Amino acid sequence: MKTPKIMTLLSDFGRVDPYVGVMKGAIARINPNLTVIDLTHDLPPQNLQAARFCLLSSYAYFPQGTVHVAVVDPGVGSSRRAIALQLPDAFLVGPDNGLFSGILAQEPVLAAVELTNPQYWLSPVVSQTFHGRDIFAPAGAYLATGVAIEELGRAIAPETLVQFPLAEYQQQADRLQGTIQYIDRFGNLITNIPATAVEGKRWWVEMAGETIRGDRTYASSPVGSAIALIGSHGYIELAVNQGNAQQQLQLDWGATIQVMVA
Amino acid sequence: MKTPKIMTLLSDFGRVDPYVGVMKGAIARINPNLTVIDLTHDLPPQNLQAARFCLLSSYAYFPQGTVHVAVVDPGVGSSRRAIALQLPDAFLVGPDNGLFSGILAQEPVLAAVELTNPQYWLSPVVSQTFHGRDIFAPAGAYLATGVAIEELGRAIAPETLVQFPLAEYQQQADRLQGTIQYIDRFGNLITNIPATAVEGKRWWVEMAGETIRGDRTYASSPVGSAIALIGSHGYIELAVNQGNAQQQLQLDWGATIQVMVA
Amino acid sequence: MKTPKIMTLLSDFGRVDPYVGVMKGAIARINPNLTVIDLTHDLPPQNLQAARFCLLSSYAYFPQGTVHVAVVDPGVGSSRRAIALQLPDAFLVGPDNGLFSGILAQEPVLAAVELTNPQYWLSPVVSQTFHGRDIFAPAGAYLATGVAIEELGRAIAPETLVQFPLAEYQQQADRLQGTIQYIDRFGNLITNIPATAVEGKRWWVEMAGETIRGDRTYASSPVGSAIALIGSHGYIELAVNQGNAQQQLQLDWGATIQVMVA
Repeated sequence: MKTPKIMTLLSDFGRVDPYVGVMKGAIARINPNLTVIDLTHDLPPQNLQAARFCLLSSYAYFPQGTVHVAVVDPGVGSSRRAIALQLPDAFLVGPDNGLFSGILAQEPVLAAVELTNPQYWLSPVVSQTFHGRDIFAPAGAYLATGVAIEELGRAIAPETLVQFPLAEYQQQADRLQGTIQYIDRFGNLITNIPATAVEGKRWWVEMAGETIRGDRTYASSPVGSAIALIGSHGYIELAVNQGNAQQQLQLDWGATIQVMVA
Repeated sequence: MKTPKIMTLLSDFGRVDPYVGVMKGAIARINPNLTVIDLTHDLPPQNLQAARFCLLSSYAYFPQGTVHVAVVDPGVGSSRRAIALQLPDAFLVGPDNGLFSGILAQEPVLAAVELTNPQYWLSPVVSQTFHGRDIFAPAGAYLATGVAIEELGRAIAPETLVQFPLAEYQQQADRLQGTIQYIDRFGNLITNIPATAVEGKRWWVEMAGETIRGDRTYASSPVGSAIALIGSHGYIELAVNQGNAQQQLQLDWGATIQVMVA
Repeated sequence: MKTPKIMTLLSDFGRVDPYVGVMKGAIARINPNLTVIDLTHDLPPQNLQAARFCLLSSYAYFPQGTVHVAVVDPGVGSSRRAIALQLPDAFLVGPDNGLFSGILAQEPVLAAVELTNPQYWLSPVVSQTFHGRDIFAPAGAYLATGVAIEELGRAIAPETLVQFPLAEYQQQADRLQGTIQYIDRFGNLITNIPATAVEGKRWWVEMAGETIRGDRTYASSPVGSAIALIGSHGYIELAVNQGNAQQQLQLDWGATIQVMVA
């Protein structure tokens, strides 16, 4: 049996309405043998920052050739481009609004097209408001089925892709300054400081005069106390053992974090 | 390889409890090669109106032969009938309480049965409270596997199917009066006035002395302002660009909407 | 075509973050032909009691050979063991913290191993905080693909498995005393008193001087009134026809319930 091809879907559509199910119907009409995996559909509406991070922290765990379709799309119906990108190990499909800029900082673009070929849209009609169903899901399904990316539309230059601005962390002597780039449902605070910046060193977080030591696991701190660790995404993360760091430390998206290295 | 058959599931079971997973287990025991797609399981409990609309706006996007199993079932355990219907392009399985009446206003019924044949129920036992697992999911799985609908139980007359009452929109000269038949999680207000009623004309919505112009896309109105458009479901819809129309316009399920046509 | 093997996933990861999607990516990299079914991912965080019950009430509905991966894991990164168990009809994979003790009270363990063989972990790295992705999902995928359980690590004695304490119901003459072991999203209160304890008898629930009669279906009581019935899980359950028993009866997890038998 031939290996089934994998698609992932990411959106802010929620799961109360049947929008995601309808996208899967449109995919199944093109190729019912594809395997479709949900990354998430419950992102805060139109939160490009959360979408960018979720894609960045997920794509490396999928098989070679996976097609990732992402639809957080405040500009649907405007002149923003609908795009597909070919990377060494994956395809990306979605609006050209910076969603993919986290991945693109790590991976080269082998080919980029604007989805201008209506032969690969949902037929017969395309709505002005639901490109996830009408353009992105079909394009992804055709890619996963083996259609060449060049068929989907006209080539575009990778350097014209919209970038989503994210502050880089700063290093000054023994001090690293970063920001919180994602907060998960447990209230874990994920910074933009990568593990590599502290690897093999002693490190801790300074906050309002207090010190939160860097350690290896949630369970290595007492229940209810804060801990800093290398999270599963590969970034420094603030957590509370069996608790909620966001609430306990009163920090939010974009807050500044100071890490000391010895 | 033979085309895998598609089933969809729709319910108000939520996703906190394992009820939906258990239905999929019951399906996999009958045929592990079926592809099962969730339409939604987070409908407001026992909201037949929302269920009717979700089915109506989804079924056309699925492959020929898809089996839709829908379980919003306030009368489980009462004498309401459990039914399966064959349409030209799909099968419908669920309680006979009007869930399917949106689709049935558009599609002819080729065959209708009551699910009276215990050979196609979950064996050995059938609970009085979870017909989704015990009767509907198995019936759907057998249909998707190729069992003839006549095997599932005794034939019933399509004209005896329970209808869910939904007001039709009214037209008087240049004025269309409709109601809000669905509100999605973005707060978009979907009326029961179809696109065909305003096609090729100039139109707008009148509301409390104000006018909301009819346009083509969310992005064609300023951020935060209301807009009327033809939604992706094919009905006139009220939305707010990057906002929530339900909250901003203070309208709820069933509210009356006036559309003017020029 | 060979029967695809079924895996289920249960966790408290929620669906807002892409953790569950990433586990499915890790599974697809090992074997893209597996069918993965979600039991639930929305358990109250670190609620072992809810997880234990969901597994107990689900596993019997899945095909022979299904691999159940469960990750509610407050002790991740501590010395708690990661385990896989072979039962007559299923495999269980997860932390050794009592999650499986509901099932294990009903089923014998044919083989038990600790997941110590890094050849079957996610390579190249294993985080200290996300064993669902790094250890449990891969172990489950290998089992579902046909790897012998003995390959996954060193054998452990079943009698050393951690047990989750759950009070047994008590019987005194015509009085059964049990507790509420699960509350579902409808507010139905599921006790730990099995159907077999009242089968063929007349029975009712006594509560604060009032009597709630035992009956067969939600619909057999008036809308809004409380009823006791044999739920679809096979336990005595308190419900309100088209209402929420938890709110109406003001009962919570662990509350004591008195059932009278005549």
